[in-house]
Amino acid sequence: MSLDRIKAGLRAQRIETPSWAYANSGTRFKVFPQPGVPRDPFEKVADAAVVHRLTGIAPTVSLHIPWDLVDDWTKLREFAQEQSVALGAINANVFQDEDYKLGSVTHPDPRVRRKATDHLLDCVDVMDATGSQDIKLWFSDGTNYPGQDDMRSRQDRLAEALAEVYRRLGGDQRMLLEYKLFEPAFYATDVPDWGTAYAHCLELGPKAQVVIDTGHHAPGTNIEFIVAFLLRQRKLGAFDFNSRFYADDDLMAGAADPFQLFRIMYEIVRGGALDPAYGITFMLDQCHNIEAKIPAILRSVLNIQEATAKALLVDRDVLGAAQQSGDVLAANAALMDAFNTDVRPMLAQLRADDGRDPDPIAAYHRSGYFERISADRTGGVQAGWGA
Amino acid sequence: MSLDRIKAGLRAQRIETPSWAYANSGTRFKVFPQPGVPRDPFEKVADAAVVHRLTGIAPTVSLHIPWDLVDDWTKLREFAQEQSVALGAINANVFQDEDYKLGSVTHPDPRVRRKATDHLLDCVDVMDATGSQDIKLWFSDGTNYPGQDDMRSRQDRLAEALAEVYRRLGGDQRMLLEYKLFEPAFYATDVPDWGTAYAHCLELGPKAQVVIDTGHHAPGTNIEFIVAFLLRQRKLGAFDFNSRFYADDDLMAGAADPFQLFRIMYEIVRGGALDPAYGITFMLDQCHNIEAKIPAILRSVLNIQEATAKALLVDRDVLGAAQQSGDVLAANAALMDAFNTDVRPMLAQLRADDGRDPDPIAAYHRSGYFERISADRTGGVQAGWGA
Amino acid sequence: MSLDRIKAGLRAQRIETPSWAYANSGTRFKVFPQPGVPRDPFEKVADAAVVHRLTGIAPTVSLHIPWDLVDDWTKLREFAQEQSVALGAINANVFQDEDYKLGSVTHPDPRVRRKATDHLLDCVDVMDATGSQDIKLWFSDGTNYPGQDDMRSRQDRLAEALAEVYRRLGGDQRMLLEYKLFEPAFYATDVPDWGTAYAHCLELGPKAQVVIDTGHHAPGTNIEFIVAFLLRQRKLGAFDFNSRFYADDDLMAGAADPFQLFRIMYEIVRGGALDPAYGITFMLDQCHNIEAKIPAILRSVLNIQEATAKALLVDRDVLGAAQQSGDVLAANAALMDAFNTDVRPMLAQLRADDGRDPDPIAAYHRSGYFERISADRTGGVQAGWGA
Amino acid sequence: MSLDRIKAGLRAQRIETPSWAYANSGTRFKVFPQPGVPRDPFEKVADAAVVHRLTGIAPTVSLHIPWDLVDDWTKLREFAQEQSVALGAINANVFQDEDYKLGSVTHPDPRVRRKATDHLLDCVDVMDATGSQDIKLWFSDGTNYPGQDDMRSRQDRLAEALAEVYRRLGGDQRMLLEYKLFEPAFYATDVPDWGTAYAHCLELGPKAQVVIDTGHHAPGTNIEFIVAFLLRQRKLGAFDFNSRFYADDDLMAGAADPFQLFRIMYEIVRGGALDPAYGITFMLDQCHNIEAKIPAILRSVLNIQEATAKALLVDRDVLGAAQQSGDVLAANAALMDAFNTDVRPMLAQLRADDGRDPDPIAAYHRSGYFERISADRTGGVQAGWGA
Repeated sequence: MSLDRIKAGLRAQRIETPSWAYANSGTRFKVFPQPGVPRDPFEKVADAAVVHRLTGIAPTVSLHIPWDLVDDWTKLREFAQEQSVALGAINANVFQDEDYKLGSVTHPDPRVRRKATDHLLDCVDVMDATGSQDIKLWFSDGTNYPGQDDMRSRQDRLAEALAEVYRRLGGDQRMLLEYKLFEPAFYATDVPDWGTAYAHCLELGPKAQVVIDTGHHAPGTNIEFIVAFLLRQRKLGAFDFNSRFYADDDLMAGAADPFQLFRIMYEIVRGGALDPAYGITFMLDQCHNIEAKIPAILRSVLNIQEATAKALLVDRDVLGAAQQSGDVLAANAALMDAFNTDVRPMLAQLRADDGRDPDPIAAYHRSGYFERISADRTGGVQAGWGA
Repeated sequence: MSLDRIKAGLRAQRIETPSWAYANSGTRFKVFPQPGVPRDPFEKVADAAVVHRLTGIAPTVSLHIPWDLVDDWTKLREFAQEQSVALGAINANVFQDEDYKLGSVTHPDPRVRRKATDHLLDCVDVMDATGSQDIKLWFSDGTNYPGQDDMRSRQDRLAEALAEVYRRLGGDQRMLLEYKLFEPAFYATDVPDWGTAYAHCLELGPKAQVVIDTGHHAPGTNIEFIVAFLLRQRKLGAFDFNSRFYADDDLMAGAADPFQLFRIMYEIVRGGALDPAYGITFMLDQCHNIEAKIPAILRSVLNIQEATAKALLVDRDVLGAAQQSGDVLAANAALMDAFNTDVRPMLAQLRADDGRDPDPIAAYHRSGYFERISADRTGGVQAGWGA
Repeated sequence: MSLDRIKAGLRAQRIETPSWAYANSGTRFKVFPQPGVPRDPFEKVADAAVVHRLTGIAPTVSLHIPWDLVDDWTKLREFAQEQSVALGAINANVFQDEDYKLGSVTHPDPRVRRKATDHLLDCVDVMDATGSQDIKLWFSDGTNYPGQDDMRSRQDRLAEALAEVYRRLGGDQRMLLEYKLFEPAFYATDVPDWGTAYAHCLELGPKAQVVIDTGHHAPGTNIEFIVAFLLRQRKLGAFDFNSRFYADDDLMAGAADPFQLFRIMYEIVRGGALDPAYGITFMLDQCHNIEAKIPAILRSVLNIQEATAKALLVDRDVLGAAQQSGDVLAANAALMDAFNTDVRPMLAQLRADDGRDPDPIAAYHRSGYFERISADRTGGVQAGWGA
Repeated sequence: MSLDRIKAGLRAQRIETPSWAYANSGTRFKVFPQPGVPRDPFEKVADAAVVHRLTGIAPTVSLHIPWDLVDDWTKLREFAQEQSVALGAINANVFQDEDYKLGSVTHPDPRVRRKATDHLLDCVDVMDATGSQDIKLWFSDGTNYPGQDDMRSRQDRLAEALAEVYRRLGGDQRMLLEYKLFEPAFYATDVPDWGTAYAHCLELGPKAQVVIDTGHHAPGTNIEFIVAFLLRQRKLGAFDFNSRFYADDDLMAGAADPFQLFRIMYEIVRGGALDPAYGITFMLDQCHNIEAKIPAILRSVLNIQEATAKALLVDRDVLGAAQQSGDVLAANAALMDAFNTDVRPMLAQLRADDGRDPDPIAAYHRSGYFERISADRTGGVQAGWGA
């Protein structure tokens, strides 16, 4: 690909940051609060806008309901607009009410299922208000012990709830269905793998698509294969990027295995899916438990951008010829040649050309923003996973 | 379930043993030959017949082409009949020809793909000759290095080959598609998981169904969930039973995790799929590298039978009521109560009632069969994975 | 082993329950509170005493500092005694103070290390007051990102802190060192595996011993091997029993893989380590996030007891002869014969002989205890991991 | 580190290639032979010499006994010398004789153990003849089924055999003990993890040291932690480099996770262990099943060299300051900055400065060596794992 086309690809790239990554988070052992953490959705949006201003490729912010509920959606929407960002996907939460101890839409009790499904429908209302196109569904539903509930009946209940929400979607709205191997359910989750999400989406229809959260797989899973396969089936709707060494660690994207991130982005490029017009939403879903929030999100956005630049650098003619001729080492070398290239100078130049600071993280530290929010955001309750 | 219905269920159970499990096998480090190992398909069938005579529930034997090629299929078929067994699924082999180093039906070279697909079509010819209903497809196809080949193009090639074979199937013939996470491919296999196999089968049509090999999953995969899900989708066609602690260890079924085997069989019972009329083929696929072949296969068949008996013992009224009321511990206890029951006396009685020895393994050792084959099968070349 | 010796072994068995398992717990997503949960260490001890009264083999309760801090240890000790239980191991907590965000005894800042070590020394003071023999150390210390801290320097700091605490131990006091693969640290933990704990204990001296938490291993780890190996080295000090399908799920012992629990208990029996005189502390360490606390702990104690009964049932003469002669299948069968036996009738009889209800869980439900604590424990703050 | 010191470090680096990596290898499914493969140890040494001539850092070649047995060791030694390489570690093989089906030095039968130990002693004789300093021990010993043999007795037998061989070592000879999680044993291996190898080496004495094979761990194991820990204990003796996605895949080093290889080499540099004087033997242990042998070994050597160059590039002052101040992101960035650097131009320059071709793989392809060996090595039997 010519450098111009590479730069065009990079300029078109869009990454969505999640409102909750700006808030406090932790493990079951401890949440360590940090200074300057937002206390409401407006402050989260303000932080997201900083990330966009510095990187130029993070123009939207995902919301999580009810954590980000506000009285006046128009006000939040306009506030975002003023900050030059927009509200992105609506993430439903059916895992924190006492009623959901044994499940939400798959719960054996129809009353609980009704309540959960109603929340999902409410989220579509929010979408109407915010202009968001996507409802993103992750279910903590599952069981901790063999026999605890009937796995197959839970699928029936899941299908029923999804169908009801699907019918409620507007013409240009989508349902994005996430899967996860385990946690918080420890024996069986109701949507454990991409196959399950895919089968449900297929039955629902074209507006239902699969979300790949890069931290939600069994050890050894080849994620880029799933990317390639779902692109072929036209059923990949979104990513939740993060990285992991063990489980759903929710570390910064690209931090644990930058080569894997590159391979994923290569499949995206190869499948023609990098362009926003293709329709994939590239989100982060991370927890910055011990590191500073905004710089960690900047780092994650840049890591994805660097992986993308390397993916765009792959000489696909050379690669294709080596593949076709069965030259294993030459084909591998064609890929590695791109990965081993240091793309940071090119990206710095790209930013400079676009009037941005070539080093977004250094610019952030120089900006005084952190000192300002640390000083200003002192009263009230810091946002976290619980609020 | 009443004891009578449990016994009826157990009497109807059918397990297919694989011809190659009677032959020599090993690891990449060493194949340890054993005395008495068959030298041709007839001797393999003879051994399989011993297993059926002693257990009463192993009436068919899977063949592997070309390992089990014979000049005259009628002769083998009649020989099996004389021994009171029948020929079962035909397992294709497109992984041992020099041409298949970089793949068979997914190979970049159309010549190799043609050759591989032709072999699959030949296998359907064999089915016509043997009366086998199922062609079972496992592909070693995959790549060892990132970039080695284009993963998505390989899916296109796979789909094309499968479609051609599917069209060749007779009215009551089926295609059974197996998946496997890794080995011998070490970076990406072309059918790595049930989702991939499911998607292909769905596109092929009703005669294509998924095979679950219990040793082919990533660590932590909940196999009984896949069983339940595929039953719900009506796409589960067969099992390859074996057990594993780490990878595709191919140990005796039930040896590594008897509780998992029980949970799998419970989902089969719960889904009404134990009865042969449902159409699932329950096969073994094992390697007895260091233990005596026939007793190991007997042990495996008995392990599955014991797990099935326990699954049938589950009091589903008690279980269902506990599940419905959200009583986690009572529901789990209902399942465990069956698992903790010692079903061996009941099964011994069942065998005695049917005129069999209550202890098939002891009967085998008393029979002198092993001494006989060890003495008789001395010339020629012992069968193994290569022949 | 004769039935009398089996029963003697079972009567001598001792399992320690953890105070925190009676309290509220959950995942990072949500803690679901339960009715009747204790509000202070006295109520925890009272619940533990119920478990002991019903099972007869749970005479001690582990404490966690600071969660179980009381003003007057003599009062708690005497209260326990009145309830016929005793206070067991003291579990230190150096992971919930703001200062410990980047580590406790391995923190780069010597001030934080001092504070953490002082807490450990305080725990030895508590041991003097409670009469506890063991300080049990689990460190959440580790790093989330490559480069975050110097792994080797952290070992130096760890060794220094352990040595200081070791020197403070009284003549019959022990230090029990736990290891854990990951969580809450997601890149590297400072004591990730038994080898690390073993090496430190060896350098510290005979009073330092390793704790095996059954949920703290990488997938595929053979835990009974570690048991056998540490017994051979005389360095196994304690267990934290629980079960897991994926990570540190902290489910009820024996719930996920009862065969594994049996194999572990077999190595204990084989190593002569079941007798309390041997010195191993058999504890539970579990989280009953969605199931009723006391019945779940009863279930766990009974699961361990059942596994132990099966382990004692192994005919070691038969097993040893088969092993010595290289008869793989006979040796495996000797072990499986014991595992497949239903030991529940024998255990019910044992309880009846000792004047207990043969079914402890049914007896608990009949006792009205849960209704009583649910009604009584209404004011105040329920205990949890945070208090 | 100054560029001069970096270059000095790189010039001093030594990587040992294994004779068997030049020979045919495969999986249990199939060995695909390749043209030009050596037929005897002389031809293997010749190939290894090519790798050294082109890279300048692979001056020794590991031998495997009995695969590399020759009548006249002096002749092989002199042949190597003529080719400017030397004979390296002696790798014992006690896994391919019929007698070793159930183990070698841990076998229940003392006759088999004697035979196996005698082979190990013979290997020390070979060392005396070849001038090799290291005997490298990997045992396939283990069990496939629970109960198959007594795990603890096997440790006693292992310890006894190791002690006998240790006593036989000359003054400057070492015993290098390898561990492996599984394969070919599928239930329990007798040296499954570094802790086991470490404990044995500690009891044996200072001449016994641990080998880390990078493909021999459970999923999720942090290998660089083990490196750092063993360096601290002065018990790391050697590496077997290769890479894996799943199990012991034996792919080219650096192919699966280049970031992990970098982290490992960073711990080596940080521990001062890169210099040959430190005493660590850096070997490859790989199987080039589908790719050309010599270029794959060149690629592996270069991958390790590139990872080492990046490790040397880490600005340890910046890193240390960030670590000490608890700046998680700055510390991580200091490490990543080195990893993200493209070191290939510097390495090409280094080679040019030393009078070598800047691109060893291109030079190999231009050299005509492959065409020559393909033409010349036509009669006889190609070397493989069996011969």
